[in-house]
Amino acid sequence: MLDRDRCIALDAEDPLRDFRHEFTMTEGVIYLVGNSLGALPRRTPERVRQAVEEEWGGRLVGGWNTAGWYDLPLTVGDRIAPLIGVGPGQVVAGNSTSIAIHQAVAAALKLRPGRRVIVSDVRNFPTDHYMVQGLAGALGGYEIRDFAEGRFDDAAVVLLSEVDYRTSERHDVAEVTARVQAAGALMIWDVCHSVGALQVDVSAADFAVGCTYKYLNAGPGAPAFLYVNPRHHADARNDLSGWHSHAEPFAFEADYRPAEGIRRFAVSTPHVLSFAALQAALDVWERVPLDLLRAKSVALGSLLVDLVGDALELASPADAERRGSHVSFRHPDGYPVMRALIDRGVHGDFRAPDILRFGLAPLYTRYVDVYDAAGTLLEVLDKEHWRDEKYTQRLAVT
Amino acid sequence: MLDRDRCIALDAEDPLRDFRHEFTMTEGVIYLVGNSLGALPRRTPERVRQAVEEEWGGRLVGGWNTAGWYDLPLTVGDRIAPLIGVGPGQVVAGNSTSIAIHQAVAAALKLRPGRRVIVSDVRNFPTDHYMVQGLAGALGGYEIRDFAEGRFDDAAVVLLSEVDYRTSERHDVAEVTARVQAAGALMIWDVCHSVGALQVDVSAADFAVGCTYKYLNAGPGAPAFLYVNPRHHADARNDLSGWHSHAEPFAFEADYRPAEGIRRFAVSTPHVLSFAALQAALDVWERVPLDLLRAKSVALGSLLVDLVGDALELASPADAERRGSHVSFRHPDGYPVMRALIDRGVHGDFRAPDILRFGLAPLYTRYVDVYDAAGTLLEVLDKEHWRDEKYTQRLAVT
Repeated sequence: MLDRDRCIALDAEDPLRDFRHEFTMTEGVIYLVGNSLGALPRRTPERVRQAVEEEWGGRLVGGWNTAGWYDLPLTVGDRIAPLIGVGPGQVVAGNSTSIAIHQAVAAALKLRPGRRVIVSDVRNFPTDHYMVQGLAGALGGYEIRDFAEGRFDDAAVVLLSEVDYRTSERHDVAEVTARVQAAGALMIWDVCHSVGALQVDVSAADFAVGCTYKYLNAGPGAPAFLYVNPRHHADARNDLSGWHSHAEPFAFEADYRPAEGIRRFAVSTPHVLSFAALQAALDVWERVPLDLLRAKSVALGSLLVDLVGDALELASPADAERRGSHVSFRHPDGYPVMRALIDRGVHGDFRAPDILRFGLAPLYTRYVDVYDAAGTLLEVLDKEHWRDEKYTQRLAVT
Repeated sequence: MLDRDRCIALDAEDPLRDFRHEFTMTEGVIYLVGNSLGALPRRTPERVRQAVEEEWGGRLVGGWNTAGWYDLPLTVGDRIAPLIGVGPGQVVAGNSTSIAIHQAVAAALKLRPGRRVIVSDVRNFPTDHYMVQGLAGALGGYEIRDFAEGRFDDAAVVLLSEVDYRTSERHDVAEVTARVQAAGALMIWDVCHSVGALQVDVSAADFAVGCTYKYLNAGPGAPAFLYVNPRHHADARNDLSGWHSHAEPFAFEADYRPAEGIRRFAVSTPHVLSFAALQAALDVWERVPLDLLRAKSVALGSLLVDLVGDALELASPADAERRGSHVSFRHPDGYPVMRALIDRGVHGDFRAPDILRFGLAPLYTRYVDVYDAAGTLLEVLDKEHWRDEKYTQRLAVT
């Protein structure tokens, strides 16, 4: 078992150690919720100020041309591409993960018109499954089958998260993609819980979606992204065919005519101010050696698992290779336990019914943070601080 | 005809005159594009800074509870409601106008299952019609009929803009709504070009959509809004059923279960930073006497029409009552004419094929601005400045 001094030494040797200085860190807080909302990059406030005052205030409507607003979904998409293992012209940024899921599933169904089964993971983050249910209800005539059944031979499409939001269980993207495609179905990956935490590679998939406000640190409600494999660019249909996906949006033609390439999956006016924060976040990511992320994430996770030991039931896979970059434990009173922990400066989160989650963002989480967090957690459990009634009252968002 | 001194006197008497000081105005620019992208309110930079640094940076994921992020679509929706003549709990903010159009049309079709005709205006802003075409293509089996045909007896839904983006022609909302509903169809209004420019009242309609970056001044790509008449809250279906529209999003239930009330039309995580600018814009709107907007808008429009006279063909209705708050003229070389005008500090915009548009935002456009803009326009036309080849080269966004 590592002691605290050894953790401090590991932080000093960490090749990613300088990235922590790129973020605003709150004194006295160990922030292990970067898997839900990433920390604020130091240069983001200035970038957003610039977008508000210089671009909008200074250039007004001219910003569409001179500040590059019109192309944001594509230029920003190209900067996200390396983070998911794909090339330029394959990713469009904007809207939300839910909207991107709708676009991808709707497109996939049209590409496999003879098949009437959508495979979805009922344990997936709920919005994925809810969006599938919404689309299936709108279209009619589709069966939704749980991924756990493992049968794809009559499926049009399979939607799955690389890393499970609750347990952190990680799927083998290459293996699942190959199996799904061998069965004649299309594969859509949701990489919300993996992008920015490990070396994602969805290049073999048909579609992928993800958000940028978790490990990518682009801020609350930052734009999402949609990857479309180039082999589908000519045939895939965007049913949310807003004017920014038109071949010539500013010709104001009466009828829809899809743009060539990934632009056909844009929808409409990008949220420019939210994009500014995403641009600042990507300025950091551009300098991150992606091959170093995973090793640190695994080391942090294993350290936490070791330190907590038998004090809590591990909800995540014990094998670090099968985990994403958060570690989850089970406790029947997980909610008050987490609130007691937060009160003591260690921020994780709770996911119903009984999951305590700790996100280990490799860019700013230190070994010593994990060491101290585990110590505080063990103390909360040992002294039963969580039994204090002030921790049981529910907040609106848990 | 008014002279310049009389315009200055009118500005001094204008009961809305002080609102101009709420905005950042660029020296030497007469900005008549507030119908495309509204000006920057003075207090917006500070509100956005606060959202970035204090809410995100300071509260991190706790902002979902303590900064009210989770409820933004509803709390902000309630502040938009008075601007479109409806009550609290009837408007949800977020996403984009295009997405809201999809939601409204999809919901309307499910509410009228026996009808297979969607009435849309082929002259409408293209995204409206494109979204209808996208949805109809996804569902199959629907006919899209042009509004100009005037036949609604077999229509499920009618989608129309209150004010035409090109000509500024204004429909009579009450009359059209009554006619459509008498035919058994549902009415969806797009108020992008009317909200914030006149006293919109869509309370009798079934749905309404609109954006906030034009006359409402919430910034490039600001969140849009969707009004759903309370009579449909229990039965209308949101086919973009993301987790924020679920009855209990944080219960993480496997199956979708719609929320009660307007929340069922939320989709997913709101774009918090873009919402911050919208909140600052609404701080201004909360103090605007809405009943004074229209009179000023009509006076400004009539002044421009009078001053331009026969120098250009009027593309807008001559009757001010039938116009929105922008005035359009036709010129076969409208593009270089507008660029020559912009070069001389008068900013309007061009809409293909031949429309010169001048937006007259009542909160910050002065009579003297209109007077000076008309003078510059007449000079550009008279001296044929626009024939200079530097004005003919097309920019990406026109």
